[in-house]
Amino acid sequence: MSLARLLEYEEALPEVRAVYDDIMKTRGVDWINNFWKALANDPAALKRIWENAKQVMAPGALDPLTKEMIYVAVSATNGCEYCTYSHTAAARRKGMTDAMFMELMSVVGLANETNRLANGLRPPVDPQFKP
Amino acid sequence: MSLARLLEYEEALPEVRAVYDDIMKTRGVDWINNFWKALANDPAALKRIWENAKQVMAPGALDPLTKEMIYVAVSATNGCEYCTYSHTAAARRKGMTDAMFMELMSVVGLANETNRLANGLRPPVDPQFKP
Amino acid sequence: MSLARLLEYEEALPEVRAVYDDIMKTRGVDWINNFWKALANDPAALKRIWENAKQVMAPGALDPLTKEMIYVAVSATNGCEYCTYSHTAAARRKGMTDAMFMELMSVVGLANETNRLANGLRPPVDPQFKP
Amino acid sequence: MSLARLLEYEEALPEVRAVYDDIMKTRGVDWINNFWKALANDPAALKRIWENAKQVMAPGALDPLTKEMIYVAVSATNGCEYCTYSHTAAARRKGMTDAMFMELMSVVGLANETNRLANGLRPPVDPQFKP
Amino acid sequence: MSLARLLEYEEALPEVRAVYDDIMKTRGVDWINNFWKALANDPAALKRIWENAKQVMAPGALDPLTKEMIYVAVSATNGCEYCTYSHTAAARRKGMTDAMFMELMSVVGLANETNRLANGLRPPVDPQFKP
Amino acid sequence: MSLARLLEYEEALPEVRAVYDDIMKTRGVDWINNFWKALANDPAALKRIWENAKQVMAPGALDPLTKEMIYVAVSATNGCEYCTYSHTAAARRKGMTDAMFMELMSVVGLANETNRLANGLRPPVDPQFKP
Repeated sequence: MSLARLLEYEEALPEVRAVYDDIMKTRGVDWINNFWKALANDPAALKRIWENAKQVMAPGALDPLTKEMIYVAVSATNGCEYCTYSHTAAARRKGMTDAMFMELMSVVGLANETNRLANGLRPPVDPQFKP
Repeated sequence: MSLARLLEYEEALPEVRAVYDDIMKTRGVDWINNFWKALANDPAALKRIWENAKQVMAPGALDPLTKEMIYVAVSATNGCEYCTYSHTAAARRKGMTDAMFMELMSVVGLANETNRLANGLRPPVDPQFKP
Repeated sequence: MSLARLLEYEEALPEVRAVYDDIMKTRGVDWINNFWKALANDPAALKRIWENAKQVMAPGALDPLTKEMIYVAVSATNGCEYCTYSHTAAARRKGMTDAMFMELMSVVGLANETNRLANGLRPPVDPQFKP
Repeated sequence: MSLARLLEYEEALPEVRAVYDDIMKTRGVDWINNFWKALANDPAALKRIWENAKQVMAPGALDPLTKEMIYVAVSATNGCEYCTYSHTAAARRKGMTDAMFMELMSVVGLANETNRLANGLRPPVDPQFKP
Repeated sequence: MSLARLLEYEEALPEVRAVYDDIMKTRGVDWINNFWKALANDPAALKRIWENAKQVMAPGALDPLTKEMIYVAVSATNGCEYCTYSHTAAARRKGMTDAMFMELMSVVGLANETNRLANGLRPPVDPQFKP
Repeated sequence: MSLARLLEYEEALPEVRAVYDDIMKTRGVDWINNFWKALANDPAALKRIWENAKQVMAPGALDPLTKEMIYVAVSATNGCEYCTYSHTAAARRKGMTDAMFMELMSVVGLANETNRLANGLRPPVDPQFKP
């Protein structure tokens, strides 16, 4: 029950098809997931977000698997269901094992716990932590 | 202006000192940061959270630097000032370069953006993403 | 699977019926949505929240459509499923087009992204921004 | 550096003064805290929010101290600095001891941790939990 | 559709069974809820989180019902579906009435409202609130 | 105390200066705010985020003032201090009056309140709200 129509390849405008083609080619898959089909209602936004994602998630100072696990960490913290499923699947495709996933969740849980202890107890930031 | 008194080593109970000693030994430092000094008002909680942190942040299926960067990602997402400063400092000590930090932030930014696009557009989770 | 019983008009106390009548009259509809039926378990809360909503969402310095879009922006940011569906429907009834909805989502996404970049990079607030 | 002017009693309109008087009388204090002085730029909002607060925080099925601690729990979870300071102070005035405050924080920390473990691992809700 | 396999008692390792047994004994129930079955994929994390939960939720300066209601407050604030269902059920088992639940929700709603008013209006913290 | 060095125009690389020039020209100002100076440590990210911002915040189906107010709504909801100051200043430059700002805050507060009531009471989404 999407709040935006899911635009299929067959009915899409040429500029949308061009992005869909690039998504499938970049990822080596033959289908488009629903996030992009919803975003395609605004072709400029589709192109912008996809190009952001392609640039940000490419290998660089961090490897792609680390980036996907950071994505999962943020998505679980925010409680985004769609993003948790899609980026956990992506991280698994890039090599995340069961043990890595469980450890990732432990770090996410701990960070969320201590974030709130710090927010509630309000200790001042130690000068040693300041750059 | 902490909401809990910051307990210094000199005035601390033996069970608090034992945790402080373990923190300094584990981290190879000679000082205790304010988070633990605030938490020390509840010695059982201090011991519990520290032992959690020690277990979760130890090397395992993920390396310690990756874990620190995940911690920073969660802290920036939650807007926790203390945790952002302390875990960014910790990640730098463990080898995070400027380029890695900036890329980490780009992933965190992108994930927060697409989390809300998914929350607003509400595309259904694709069956391909389900385990 | 509501965590509070959904109170139907027929079984409701007179003070609940009075609020239900006012909701239907104010909105020009002949049904009550589930949010109010759940809240009706506390008639004083039902009356209080409804009167808040009626006061806040009335035309004033901002027009009702702008207010509904702000409501959707907050609901998507918080990931509240019920509120995203109900206020997107309300915004559409008040004139939000597909193009407006997609642009709204782009702003929400961008703001969530830059919020976390600012939270992570921690630039000081420029004096020029201070009132 | 408030983003809204802080309206002092002396310069306030009669309807604002009436709310200020009621706040001071209800709380048994002789000063107005900055939150209300900022909100007073919209006298209708000041009156609405204050009357909500008075109704919600009054003794009922829950006692006022429990309500203040719930307020602190939400404020620490959201990372709201102003609200954490003001409601921790209010809870202390109503009898919250150091031990209660530290336990409260432990529950808040644990709940934030397990919330994210549940968001990331996505176990289905057990039928036994459904009302 | 859990993202982690749900480990049943019959197939579990002895150290997992030991935690399951302790959960059932501590709570006086004869079944294990899905959260623990998902967490059991990392037996060390299962044991750690369960022992945290047992320590934090035990009677102390706060009674167990107050602690469960604080848990519900945090879970509703974070929008964690699983935790809201499970801890609302737990709070009801410990004596939370309908009236208490509705009042709890009113406090949670008010706190979330005023948290954002404070975040947006940015009044400075009054010196009187500082410890 | 920024966690990333603030790069001044004089010391910046040509591709950073080109973005700075475009920011100043687009906004009709003669200074660069600290957010961009921090982001400039990653020139590709600086360019990407700025071009996103320019595209998203341009007039379209929504006018620029409405977009800035939505930005403020999200920033106050997330508790992002920097973004709240900078986008409130931007909204004021684009014509937001005191009355509009106070009404905006009332909507943000109400939406955050009802989001949590919906999250806690969990009424099912009414079929009438589904597109």
